[in-house]
Amino acid sequence: MTAGRNAPFIPGPTNMPERLRLAMDIALEDQRAPDFPVFVLGLFRDLKRIFKTDRGEIFIFPGSGTGGWEAAITNTLSPGDTVLASRFGQFSHLWVDLCRRHGLEVEAIDVDWGEGVPVARYAERLGADTAHEIKAVLVCHNETATGVTSDVAAVRAALDAADHPALLCVDGVSSIASIDFRMDEWGVDLAVSGSQKGFMLPTGLAMVGASEKALEAARSAQCPRCFFDFADMVRTNRDGFFPYTPATTLLRGLRASLDMLLEEGLDNVFARHHRLAGGVRRAVEAWGLALCAKEPKWYSDTVSAIQVPDGFDANDVVKMAYLRYNLSLGLGLSKVAGAVFRIGHLGALNELMLLSALAGSEMAMRDLGIPVEPGSGVAAAEEHYRTTARPVDMSRGATAAI
Amino acid sequence: MTAGRNAPFIPGPTNMPERLRLAMDIALEDQRAPDFPVFVLGLFRDLKRIFKTDRGEIFIFPGSGTGGWEAAITNTLSPGDTVLASRFGQFSHLWVDLCRRHGLEVEAIDVDWGEGVPVARYAERLGADTAHEIKAVLVCHNETATGVTSDVAAVRAALDAADHPALLCVDGVSSIASIDFRMDEWGVDLAVSGSQKGFMLPTGLAMVGASEKALEAARSAQCPRCFFDFADMVRTNRDGFFPYTPATTLLRGLRASLDMLLEEGLDNVFARHHRLAGGVRRAVEAWGLALCAKEPKWYSDTVSAIQVPDGFDANDVVKMAYLRYNLSLGLGLSKVAGAVFRIGHLGALNELMLLSALAGSEMAMRDLGIPVEPGSGVAAAEEHYRTTARPVDMSRGATAAI
Amino acid sequence: MTAGRNAPFIPGPTNMPERLRLAMDIALEDQRAPDFPVFVLGLFRDLKRIFKTDRGEIFIFPGSGTGGWEAAITNTLSPGDTVLASRFGQFSHLWVDLCRRHGLEVEAIDVDWGEGVPVARYAERLGADTAHEIKAVLVCHNETATGVTSDVAAVRAALDAADHPALLCVDGVSSIASIDFRMDEWGVDLAVSGSQKGFMLPTGLAMVGASEKALEAARSAQCPRCFFDFADMVRTNRDGFFPYTPATTLLRGLRASLDMLLEEGLDNVFARHHRLAGGVRRAVEAWGLALCAKEPKWYSDTVSAIQVPDGFDANDVVKMAYLRYNLSLGLGLSKVAGAVFRIGHLGALNELMLLSALAGSEMAMRDLGIPVEPGSGVAAAEEHYRTTARPVDMSRGATAAI
Amino acid sequence: MTAGRNAPFIPGPTNMPERLRLAMDIALEDQRAPDFPVFVLGLFRDLKRIFKTDRGEIFIFPGSGTGGWEAAITNTLSPGDTVLASRFGQFSHLWVDLCRRHGLEVEAIDVDWGEGVPVARYAERLGADTAHEIKAVLVCHNETATGVTSDVAAVRAALDAADHPALLCVDGVSSIASIDFRMDEWGVDLAVSGSQKGFMLPTGLAMVGASEKALEAARSAQCPRCFFDFADMVRTNRDGFFPYTPATTLLRGLRASLDMLLEEGLDNVFARHHRLAGGVRRAVEAWGLALCAKEPKWYSDTVSAIQVPDGFDANDVVKMAYLRYNLSLGLGLSKVAGAVFRIGHLGALNELMLLSALAGSEMAMRDLGIPVEPGSGVAAAEEHYRTTARPVDMSRGATAAI
Repeated sequence: MTAGRNAPFIPGPTNMPERLRLAMDIALEDQRAPDFPVFVLGLFRDLKRIFKTDRGEIFIFPGSGTGGWEAAITNTLSPGDTVLASRFGQFSHLWVDLCRRHGLEVEAIDVDWGEGVPVARYAERLGADTAHEIKAVLVCHNETATGVTSDVAAVRAALDAADHPALLCVDGVSSIASIDFRMDEWGVDLAVSGSQKGFMLPTGLAMVGASEKALEAARSAQCPRCFFDFADMVRTNRDGFFPYTPATTLLRGLRASLDMLLEEGLDNVFARHHRLAGGVRRAVEAWGLALCAKEPKWYSDTVSAIQVPDGFDANDVVKMAYLRYNLSLGLGLSKVAGAVFRIGHLGALNELMLLSALAGSEMAMRDLGIPVEPGSGVAAAEEHYRTTARPVDMSRGATAAI
Repeated sequence: MTAGRNAPFIPGPTNMPERLRLAMDIALEDQRAPDFPVFVLGLFRDLKRIFKTDRGEIFIFPGSGTGGWEAAITNTLSPGDTVLASRFGQFSHLWVDLCRRHGLEVEAIDVDWGEGVPVARYAERLGADTAHEIKAVLVCHNETATGVTSDVAAVRAALDAADHPALLCVDGVSSIASIDFRMDEWGVDLAVSGSQKGFMLPTGLAMVGASEKALEAARSAQCPRCFFDFADMVRTNRDGFFPYTPATTLLRGLRASLDMLLEEGLDNVFARHHRLAGGVRRAVEAWGLALCAKEPKWYSDTVSAIQVPDGFDANDVVKMAYLRYNLSLGLGLSKVAGAVFRIGHLGALNELMLLSALAGSEMAMRDLGIPVEPGSGVAAAEEHYRTTARPVDMSRGATAAI
Repeated sequence: MTAGRNAPFIPGPTNMPERLRLAMDIALEDQRAPDFPVFVLGLFRDLKRIFKTDRGEIFIFPGSGTGGWEAAITNTLSPGDTVLASRFGQFSHLWVDLCRRHGLEVEAIDVDWGEGVPVARYAERLGADTAHEIKAVLVCHNETATGVTSDVAAVRAALDAADHPALLCVDGVSSIASIDFRMDEWGVDLAVSGSQKGFMLPTGLAMVGASEKALEAARSAQCPRCFFDFADMVRTNRDGFFPYTPATTLLRGLRASLDMLLEEGLDNVFARHHRLAGGVRRAVEAWGLALCAKEPKWYSDTVSAIQVPDGFDANDVVKMAYLRYNLSLGLGLSKVAGAVFRIGHLGALNELMLLSALAGSEMAMRDLGIPVEPGSGVAAAEEHYRTTARPVDMSRGATAAI
Repeated sequence: MTAGRNAPFIPGPTNMPERLRLAMDIALEDQRAPDFPVFVLGLFRDLKRIFKTDRGEIFIFPGSGTGGWEAAITNTLSPGDTVLASRFGQFSHLWVDLCRRHGLEVEAIDVDWGEGVPVARYAERLGADTAHEIKAVLVCHNETATGVTSDVAAVRAALDAADHPALLCVDGVSSIASIDFRMDEWGVDLAVSGSQKGFMLPTGLAMVGASEKALEAARSAQCPRCFFDFADMVRTNRDGFFPYTPATTLLRGLRASLDMLLEEGLDNVFARHHRLAGGVRRAVEAWGLALCAKEPKWYSDTVSAIQVPDGFDANDVVKMAYLRYNLSLGLGLSKVAGAVFRIGHLGALNELMLLSALAGSEMAMRDLGIPVEPGSGVAAAEEHYRTTARPVDMSRGATAAI
């Protein structure tokens, strides 16, 4: 047993802020209490601010992001429906798989891992679908496996250009609340998120945004569903209740999470993630390594997948970091297993926390013989953080006189 | 804002023990860490002891009991399959509804609320089904809405007597870990439980036991599923992992819950619930009121639904108790709304805690004009607890000398 | 190990509210941080509101009430000084003892346990002391051992009537923040309190109010002191710091405690304690027992010492309650050991919590053969609480429709 | 408000381990409960193992280290007694001051700050004191203000060489439980510690070890005392109680602290501190800076005081680190205010945590124009940690297959 605490730098779950932890360290409560609805209705109101939707509804299910994917699809589509999707990482891959298991016909475009949604090919395919056989278009906004952020607005533009009525379904699990996401402005019909990423909470809540168009589609969609049924939620949520026992502890945590996000201001949250991610990218450069994301336009502000040089096993980096330095990095998954390790840089982080992850990564890589200069990544990140730090009022506060 | 704490006496979630609360007051962790599987495999091992199965598997899903129902059904049945069920409360009612939404043909026998599973009618129907069109038989072991416990072993006997191969599916949400449940001995094929009842945890985990026969059925069952798919679980659970991010915080709580249950010993846990429930039943008698459960053989050891006299609204009792005395009682649901209020007596309770709920119930009833003698229920319960208490060694421990 | 939680009904420490517990469940912090003083100065400001002083200072020492007694005495008196005191319980007794150990000459008037400060005898003695040899007068505002509250204002009146300059020193450990206390109005020069009573916190802080006159006396007082020295505190507190490392965790708890007290309003806090105590007194009457406090004017709103009938050992009641029902009652101390047991009714309590203590007391007494009617005390308290409860707006809040 | 958590690297209070935090996140309890003594007696037993004494007693007072100093002195000495001491930092200075306030005659040898106890001068003085007028010799084992560790064994040798009966009084506040300390072997008569350093707890407990000789001296010592009186403790501790309400929450934390220390093994704890401190010292060297401690023999394993170059204000480093990077460093105190800043490296730390403090220190220094190379200190520490790390079994544990 090592002393001190574990440093969790997987791309979710995250370093949970104390405030959220305390918000959930509570007694259990009656989900049918007379004053429970006031609390619940406030959650829906503020979740809409995070998803940036006025016209849609947000649903909160006990579950994980996978449950959110399932809810989005089964409520709005019918067996046999055609769906357009692309695969460029483990999570975009798995959503396609889920759709197929629910009887949908998925046209899945395979893209190199390290790139994002192929907007031009989507545009082409949508333009050609004059019969509107495609009922839904899937976009993985932030592919957690490769650290790639895609351009959702461009997909919306492609749909609009083709005047195509397909539902725009976005996996925002590792983007919403960390990276700018605009449900209404981008015309997103279904937006899936989970509690354990930008919301900084434990796993356990799937949150799904549904546009008016999606809710309309739910009326005729034939995929069977009950646990994830929108209609049961709509009927009970309107009064501040749920169709079955909700995870009240997580809901109290969600309240605190929403408070934190809104107090900081979403733009500040996004800027903070971008700035922190910048330090990691400078460290990778200083190490002489490359990101899995092929071009800066794909760089994710919530996770960086870092390629180790040929001849080294990235899994060993992750294992060494964990066993020797109590640092949890993300494994490479599926196609990039062994080729990349991942540093999650989302949630309630500051410079020093992330610098410790960079220091630990350096040490683990050097322990395995990967030729990086000691301190090089940390130095590059330090200088990035220093030069982008907000000015400090050194006259603020008192100095203890002893 | 009243001073002091809320007294949660709904039939789940329960008075969470401190030990569980602290077990979950932790940092988030990496579900792919090298030592995570050791922890996970221990959960499965000990859950089997709680479900009393050697041959089956237990699956842990993020979700609620409703999710557990869905998992049990969709993994083992195909659209159009016939299911035999009975309805005698809100939860037995809802499971039937869920089955129908997933395309199953449910033969639902309606029974008076206050009774349990109609074993003789089941036996009759099963005996008549020589073609074995019935693929599954549903049993709600403990109907939380009415405080009625049914005889699962008798249903198994009926199946055996008819030599009928239907799957025996049991809703054990409010019985397992509180009331004796024997998965293997009773030949239960699918057993559904949730974290927020006998496991004393927050809502958020659905636990489903599946027999070998159920796992075999899953290979050919055609109901679409992905989030709740057994096969994904089997494939990853065997190595101590999960197919998607698990609710690690609740899993740590589950570890502590299993430790508590096994340290006390299941038989002691059941006896404690029975003894505590006995005090409530004596209180109801002393009040001159009746339980919803029609006969002692139906009396539940985890929840009592108490009928208020004609002319009074049980919802008012619940509301008065909450608003005036910070006591959370269970509302009557659906058919018995307004007719009963419920006292949950499951989880980590002792005599004093339950006596406070009885005192509060007396006060709320009297506030509304319901003619119960002040202190009468408390007195009856006190005498029950006193006369059934274990002897105390008064020589034990020290007395502070001042 | 019994299930469920312990019911702490000793007269402090108390049932700590969740809010305080969470406020202290924090990381440790730097007591010399630039923004620490803002936090500290707010504590002093609000403590003055609790002590009801504008002109005095409040000091916060790591320690217990005993430390507060020592601080009050050693900062303001010199060896050989004469002090007037009275003894009518273990705590008034111990303060006299402490004074003597610090070299003071104490004139201690012994009074029957069950009575309070003998104001007439104080007046007489002060009137006779025309040479003003008496430098300080000690008053135990609320004698925790016997459940007796004394009349501090009357002692002030006696001092004024005699035009006597002695310092008025009050032990308010189990009164301040629970029972009305008015430092300035009553001309209290030294007021001692502790964190674990009305402030509802763990033991660990001694809080001492000092009037301008006391601070003036501190300039020439010769009792040696350093840890408890006022002057070091004055010098550093003014800037929001402390002369040595403070118990920051408890200070954060104190912040939350002050917030709770001020949000509820002191008058409401006092009224709540009075009302809750009333229920206990009615229960004692219904049991056919007597309080240690001899007359209603002495009845304490924070603790009741209850006499068991001749032939019974009150220590056995306490032990039985603890071992069998997980209820912590207060032992009788010193002269009344075995003769009384005590129920603490201070802190964040509500009716139901206190009713559970009464139920447990009844059961323990009956287990030992003490002839009290089952439910009698609970019934009397219930009726008291019901008839003094605030009206409830039954139209408030929602009712879950199922 | 910055995101993420504060990094506390003052030399106590420390980064409190989760295990201790949870151990104290409990309800309040009755310090006179029948089973409380079993718990308390275990604390004394295990504290003796930490202090390394079989023959002495350990006392636990609510208070801070300053209270411990006071307890040690007032219980064993009489006004007018002569004490030999030395001053080389703020804490050795303050103990002398405390002694004088209690009426002792202190011969205080002033030594340059950066050095430790002047053993030769002590030896000389003791040898000359053939009349044995010196009643006690004070040693500050680890001067927290300067990061200097002194040689207690050598002082014992000097006493023995002079055959001098003076009591050996040691301030072990920032050494005990972090740096080797041997009460019996070194013939320490009074050993003072506090909860907030090596015990990793919040401030609030002063722990004082007293040898048989010290306890004997207490019988005749004339310094007045009550709150800190050994005799009251001896009388009640023997049965597992305390003379006044103890800080039960901290005692429960102490239990967990003792468990952690004894499970890791004291030698491992000391070695860990030494190894971690080594990294800080290499960083300081890489920065081109010097420690306040003048020679390696004085280097403290729990705190490093680092001199900033002429022309810079170390207070600014501390303030910049706090305001900009949420890093709490220790201010320079008194004579070295502005000249040094301090990094505490005691308690439950690991490499990554300490590296983050080094990174933050680098950034703050560079922000202020202090010419240190970015990453230089971190790199030097990384290499120290890597090359001294224990081998890792890379075959241990599972790798999640996705």
